[in-house]
Amino acid sequence: MADDPRLGELGEWELIDRLAAFAPAGQFADDAAVLQPAAELVVNTDVLVEGVHFSDATTDGYAAGWRAAAANLSDLAAMGCRSAHGLTVGLVAPADTRWSWVEGVYRGLQACLSPHGGVLLGGDCSSGSQRLLAITALGPLQAGAAIRRGDGRPGDALVCTGPHGLSRLGLALLQEALAAPQRQALPAELKKAAIAAHRFPRPRFDAVQALHRSRPSGQPWRVGGTDSSDGLAAAAAAIARASGCRAQLSRTALPLAPAMAELAEAEAWCLGGGEDFELVLALEPAWAAAMVAALPGSQRIGQLSALEPEAEKAAALVWEQDGSPVKVGGYSHFH
Amino acid sequence: MADDPRLGELGEWELIDRLAAFAPAGQFADDAAVLQPAAELVVNTDVLVEGVHFSDATTDGYAAGWRAAAANLSDLAAMGCRSAHGLTVGLVAPADTRWSWVEGVYRGLQACLSPHGGVLLGGDCSSGSQRLLAITALGPLQAGAAIRRGDGRPGDALVCTGPHGLSRLGLALLQEALAAPQRQALPAELKKAAIAAHRFPRPRFDAVQALHRSRPSGQPWRVGGTDSSDGLAAAAAAIARASGCRAQLSRTALPLAPAMAELAEAEAWCLGGGEDFELVLALEPAWAAAMVAALPGSQRIGQLSALEPEAEKAAALVWEQDGSPVKVGGYSHFH
Repeated sequence: MADDPRLGELGEWELIDRLAAFAPAGQFADDAAVLQPAAELVVNTDVLVEGVHFSDATTDGYAAGWRAAAANLSDLAAMGCRSAHGLTVGLVAPADTRWSWVEGVYRGLQACLSPHGGVLLGGDCSSGSQRLLAITALGPLQAGAAIRRGDGRPGDALVCTGPHGLSRLGLALLQEALAAPQRQALPAELKKAAIAAHRFPRPRFDAVQALHRSRPSGQPWRVGGTDSSDGLAAAAAAIARASGCRAQLSRTALPLAPAMAELAEAEAWCLGGGEDFELVLALEPAWAAAMVAALPGSQRIGQLSALEPEAEKAAALVWEQDGSPVKVGGYSHFH
Repeated sequence: MADDPRLGELGEWELIDRLAAFAPAGQFADDAAVLQPAAELVVNTDVLVEGVHFSDATTDGYAAGWRAAAANLSDLAAMGCRSAHGLTVGLVAPADTRWSWVEGVYRGLQACLSPHGGVLLGGDCSSGSQRLLAITALGPLQAGAAIRRGDGRPGDALVCTGPHGLSRLGLALLQEALAAPQRQALPAELKKAAIAAHRFPRPRFDAVQALHRSRPSGQPWRVGGTDSSDGLAAAAAAIARASGCRAQLSRTALPLAPAMAELAEAEAWCLGGGEDFELVLALEPAWAAAMVAALPGSQRIGQLSALEPEAEKAAALVWEQDGSPVKVGGYSHFH
């Protein structure tokens, strides 16, 4: 057998033995995993498919594993978790896949997961025509401290926890989709940050911790929010719709990365680029101000306003300055 | 749009809306699901791939969904759960897949799950080149009442909760792999039972309930066990290996379905057919006898014996009658 055997050479049992090395000792010894959860538990499943969510051209095994873990853990943070119990992994790959790719995936998963207190809980693997990862993440939630899309109220400030559009720029750089003069005009620092943002997004558990720290005393827990995995505009619109409000975004306070404003695509990528995995939160204004002060990189991006009953068909997302609709091209997996 | 649109026509959001109808109201409204678990929680992930674990020829959407749920729930039962919290579903399918197939899958999942107290907790969907289901099941476990592969002891009786080989016979019938005279010789009742066993296996939560009921008073909880998803012989061998014992199977007490003994393949399919999803348990003999009395269809199939230190390389699975090794062809997904 070669140093880097194909999965078909390894066989299922040897593969599972090798994967068990990424989990705590004995974790793979039984039919399923047992854990002692907190009072409330958040569970989330995401599927990442080669050719749809990642490609060998832009994402090696390590980055694919990191991104798969990050996307799932981001959903835990978006529900209010401050850490993770862990995750299970369903791995599908053709039989001629190299072990080194699988090993990279699990190293990436582990590197993203372990700083947040989580372990690899278990999983399953199968052959298939296409590489894919189906991840389920589990995390503890303090009772009564969930973040819900529908918990925004008119008058809330909208806050996001970091810049948007960087991941989309990183993808364009990795795909060599930018014209050479445009690419050359970008600062080297920005290019590096954009590629890192695309390859290694961070689940914002730290932002949820800052949210707890910054809560004004006496303020009851009520936080509207979601993550911006589908784009900043989609996140704000989702909160607005679920909360029965309108989201007003400030055109002069777009959360662009420094130096990115030079790009023609900056606004479109900021609003609709997606996969930034930041949190977008609807907070009572005093809490919003305290949150922005507590978390470097976060900023106010707009507010929620009341939606008049007769205006039910009105746009959920408008510019704060003139009330005109915010337009963004969305991405739908089945189109 | 046709009455039975393709997923590419539906689009991702309409698809998710339709899938949300299979979950409790509001369950799909947020980034992830929140649940209030018991003291201990069991979590298990299984992947079922078209062409590997199911095919259109033998399994329609409803049966694929049922089997996917049953395989996962069986692992919860094999860990000692008596019911389920629910499951998450990662669905991958090509864009030209009909909605009716997806609807069938979710109806099947729900039909298998709901009698055991579980709900659809959430999930994700994506396009891909091949249909597949990645299911994660969650179930409550009474603290201290886990069933573990490694908890068998020499002297334990081995008990299984039902007949084995039926599912494999059902598969052969569905694939029309039996010669006509052989097929015609089989009783109609047996053929019906075999196809049902293959299409609609039942997770044996009822057997775990019987295990609790039949525990002799004063007997501490110690139950070795696993499910027979990979075959009866593989289950017995897994318990033996994890428990540092040898499993002795009784050749005269093979758990064949009535009338199946006539088949030439009966013994091979009973031992290695797989996908029967019964439980195989290692129990102190008095508990084993009470269990067999409490659960119709269950039976003693052998026992665990001590493995002498010098015999470390000896077969983990032997015939009780003469000590010769039990030989079964196994199935490995990557070969």
